[in-house]
Amino acid sequence: MEDIKQYMKQVGISARAAARLMAQADTATKNRALTEIAAALQAQSTQLLAANAKDVQAARANGLDDASIDRLTLSAKTVNAMAEGLLQIAQLADPVGEISDMSYRPSGIQVGKMRVPLGVIGIIYESRPNVTADAAGLCLKSGNAAILRGGSEAIHSNQAIAACVHAGLRAAGLPDSAVQVVATTDRAAVGELITMKDYVDVIVPRGGKSLIARISSDAKVPVIKHLDGICHVYIDDQADLAKAIRIADNAKTHRYGVCNAMETLLVNAKVAAEVLPPLCQIYLDKGVELRGDDAARAIVPQMVAATEEDWRTEYLAAILAVRVVADLDAAIEHIGTYSSQHTDSIVTENYSRAMRFLREVDSASVMVNASTRFADGFEYGLGAEIGISTDKIHARGPVGLEGLTSQKFIVLGSGQIRV
Amino acid sequence: MEDIKQYMKQVGISARAAARLMAQADTATKNRALTEIAAALQAQSTQLLAANAKDVQAARANGLDDASIDRLTLSAKTVNAMAEGLLQIAQLADPVGEISDMSYRPSGIQVGKMRVPLGVIGIIYESRPNVTADAAGLCLKSGNAAILRGGSEAIHSNQAIAACVHAGLRAAGLPDSAVQVVATTDRAAVGELITMKDYVDVIVPRGGKSLIARISSDAKVPVIKHLDGICHVYIDDQADLAKAIRIADNAKTHRYGVCNAMETLLVNAKVAAEVLPPLCQIYLDKGVELRGDDAARAIVPQMVAATEEDWRTEYLAAILAVRVVADLDAAIEHIGTYSSQHTDSIVTENYSRAMRFLREVDSASVMVNASTRFADGFEYGLGAEIGISTDKIHARGPVGLEGLTSQKFIVLGSGQIRV
Repeated sequence: MEDIKQYMKQVGISARAAARLMAQADTATKNRALTEIAAALQAQSTQLLAANAKDVQAARANGLDDASIDRLTLSAKTVNAMAEGLLQIAQLADPVGEISDMSYRPSGIQVGKMRVPLGVIGIIYESRPNVTADAAGLCLKSGNAAILRGGSEAIHSNQAIAACVHAGLRAAGLPDSAVQVVATTDRAAVGELITMKDYVDVIVPRGGKSLIARISSDAKVPVIKHLDGICHVYIDDQADLAKAIRIADNAKTHRYGVCNAMETLLVNAKVAAEVLPPLCQIYLDKGVELRGDDAARAIVPQMVAATEEDWRTEYLAAILAVRVVADLDAAIEHIGTYSSQHTDSIVTENYSRAMRFLREVDSASVMVNASTRFADGFEYGLGAEIGISTDKIHARGPVGLEGLTSQKFIVLGSGQIRV
Repeated sequence: MEDIKQYMKQVGISARAAARLMAQADTATKNRALTEIAAALQAQSTQLLAANAKDVQAARANGLDDASIDRLTLSAKTVNAMAEGLLQIAQLADPVGEISDMSYRPSGIQVGKMRVPLGVIGIIYESRPNVTADAAGLCLKSGNAAILRGGSEAIHSNQAIAACVHAGLRAAGLPDSAVQVVATTDRAAVGELITMKDYVDVIVPRGGKSLIARISSDAKVPVIKHLDGICHVYIDDQADLAKAIRIADNAKTHRYGVCNAMETLLVNAKVAAEVLPPLCQIYLDKGVELRGDDAARAIVPQMVAATEEDWRTEYLAAILAVRVVADLDAAIEHIGTYSSQHTDSIVTENYSRAMRFLREVDSASVMVNASTRFADGFEYGLGAEIGISTDKIHARGPVGLEGLTSQKFIVLGSGQIRV
């Protein structure tokens, strides 16, 4: 235990020193590192797959479930995708050093903001080894140092990927310690990482709900976190019903296991009898289980009765809760009560209601006439995302490079003093 | 204890409900409330001073020190200043609802950001009762609900100010519970406030270092905090020495007890012999105690020897640490090691060095050729500040209305779905 504490402290000290160099690295140098890492991953593909095979074998021997083994397993294709992802990050605009909002003040000084890296980012994730390359790339491009702590079952894969990352950093003249992969599988290392305020500026947990809940409850360092995605689509009585059906279908059935999938459909009572039968037929044909309130079940008898618990549940599955609401106020009230503040969408042609929904629904992404599935870093043009934040402080919604930076004030004077 | 828990939970529930209404309040309504509160404070001036006199009397009886009693004491003039402050907040632009960065994506959706209130702000402060009006005004204008917990010694003053705040809110048709002043002096209330994650979105502690350190160590809710202000001025060898002397004088001696006062002066070795004698004469004439390294003391023998501890000390007094450094790199290195990341300034005519200093010094405010004393919400044009953040997440430097908001994503579609 004392050893782990010392080890993590040393990791923190190295990261803090590397962060200063990374903050000063110019765009070309950072892009060079990204392309070198991508090249190393492709050149070392055979070795990576061999390291990964060791992890997979051990995981099977330890009786890990199939879904976890699936997430753990790399292939030539996924190694290639990791390399491609890094090349895409190289293409993104460098957020560091961006100056904005400069204006002259009556005193004669010119005041504005400069975008700067956060410093040291700690990333804690589970079995997917590709997060190692992905997170390293985003931290590197945003001028931060990274401390990565992957799942213990992926330790050989992660160390092999780390070797490629270090080769790329060295080729660009950047320090190895800019990206450190924690070498121990001891859980105490996580406890240290999330409480080392002097050495870590922000923690990003990536993984299941229980991991994130545990980390955010124990952390002393600020956490950019994403818990549930209980997303809603509200079909207004002034909706274009063809759009409504298309959007509600897509939001639920495009993919089931994702955080931006709709979990509860709200339908205005005035159009419920018209829109629910054709829409629910689509769901039933696709094998979606429907759970409705009394009014919805009166229209679509195939629905089972929804309970209070259903409004609070992120199914991540082919199940949908359906509720008939009196009007926009009731829809906003329901969303205010049950939404996880991830993504909510209204379908309406009414301008004033669209504006009210945008203003009054307090979620990270609020949409008009679009599928909740668009809540995504790539779809938003951020390029890549380190996560989707359902917090309010610092970053909301998909977090890209900009979310790994903050802004400092800069003052350009010509000798001014306060009088 | 169980009673306090229940009481604070009820305060939290009321604040959460009020926050929804405040987020929807339009600019005119919020400004109406601000002007009504200002009018109530002026109309109730006599009653306020009577309530305050009770607090001051009790404080004297309890043997409170003179400085604290000074901070606690209101006068007709300070009541007037509170009212004026609220009228100034009414003049500020409303940050809520501001839409920015809208752009079309290849999918046809239009994506951008809307500025929204954080929700419920908890403010914990010490003896100054004027913070009650000031903090209430900033939270109100930024569309947030506020829970205010002032010093127990100011309880009558704060309750009297709260009565004016509530009268103003009611006159504008806003709920009383938008600004709640905690009615108990029990310390357990603070412990509840800073851990009620469900009801409080951010905590702003305003007061002495020990208060802030205690709160940020115990809080489960995010904290916008400001610890030390160990600010530096670096006089480069390519500085205009007349500017350098003016700035270094102002940064130290304009006011001693403020967080943006210079605490350590760094001077390039090439100009130390030229600039230190006239500059130090100014300091000595003003009664500033000088503590220097060996090189500085060789030039100005009146200096006492500085110890390692001096570089780490926020004097908030007529004391200055002076160090001679070899070059810009050494200055940046010193600042990187000892600065509290509050405000640091370079004096130079050299363009490249100015740019390097701006980029490489990782402080909330970084300045060229200006006094550190400019690091202030009013001087920066923010209008008023709720505090100065030395954190990196969310807000750095002076925190005005914008720091009490965040941005959500908004998506404007015309029926788009993900394919």
